Amino acid sequence: MTQDQDTEKYLLDSIRLAMDNVRERKTWPFGAVLVRNGQVLARAVNEVEALCDPSAHAEMQAVRAASRAQNSTDLSGSTVYASGYPCPMCLTAMYLAGVKSVYYAYSNEDGAPYDLSAERGYVEIARPVEQREMKLAGLRVRPEGQDLYEAWREAQG
Amino acid sequence: MTQDQDTEKYLLDSIRLAMDNVRERKTWPFGAVLVRNGQVLARAVNEVEALCDPSAHAEMQAVRAASRAQNSTDLSGSTVYASGYPCPMCLTAMYLAGVKSVYYAYSNEDGAPYDLSAERGYVEIARPVEQREMKLAGLRVRPEGQDLYEAWREAQG
Repeated sequence: MTQDQDTEKYLLDSIRLAMDNVRERKTWPFGAVLVRNGQVLARAVNEVEALCDPSAHAEMQAVRAASRAQNSTDLSGSTVYASGYPCPMCLTAMYLAGVKSVYYAYSNEDGAPYDLSAERGYVEIARPVEQREMKLAGLRVRPEGQDLYEAWREAQG
Repeated sequence: MTQDQDTEKYLLDSIRLAMDNVRERKTWPFGAVLVRNGQVLARAVNEVEALCDPSAHAEMQAVRAASRAQNSTDLSGSTVYASGYPCPMCLTAMYLAGVKSVYYAYSNEDGAPYDLSAERGYVEIARPVEQREMKLAGLRVRPEGQDLYEAWREAQG
């Protein structure tokens, strides 16, 4: 198969997973497939309700499952195929894990009429900190007589 | 106690958690405490290595633990106290869960000399998609005879 045919095949699989989530588990329409070197390392769906975990988006669950399966948090060189446009949480999780490429089938524009767009998180994060909905503030608090990051450096040896 | 004293108290607790993670578990120096209405709902540390989960940052684990403890993914009105500046993954997880405020003790500038800054993820996400390290591309793939989001709408009733 060509690369484009592979992309289409895995995206269809991610949509099929999402469709099962809607029809069988009556929950969110999101699926994701994580692939490396032609091998599927994880297939996942949105499990926010199933696990009572607000972070259990499909792409996130794919990253977690693949890491467990590989016994490594390094998923360098892998590709994620997601039914929908990833939110910034999942985007960063994939980025930190070394995912190389992400393909999606449904855009934020496709999702907007159904309130299924990931746009909201991007709008928030793009705002200057002082204009965000969620307050974010630093306070230079230090325990007496010890510095956390120096302790960490020492522990590294 | 005043609000400022509370902030200091919980930030010190988050640093203490982080310090235990360094000294006892020989791993990443990050801790977080999630509080609502004066009640601590979760105390968490970075468990990336312990769980082989690249997403198991302290703030993320605090959100997940609090959701489980409350049996709700809605943490509206809560405050997170984090030892370090949150990365965009955790920031979005907290935002999506309804966290109202986030305080941190160590800034990205504090972390930079130790390679403990969360800056990298913010730089990536702020780039135009075509300039990012991680490729992100849409491909309008649809299974024949069914639309995922329409199926979701129908399932909502």
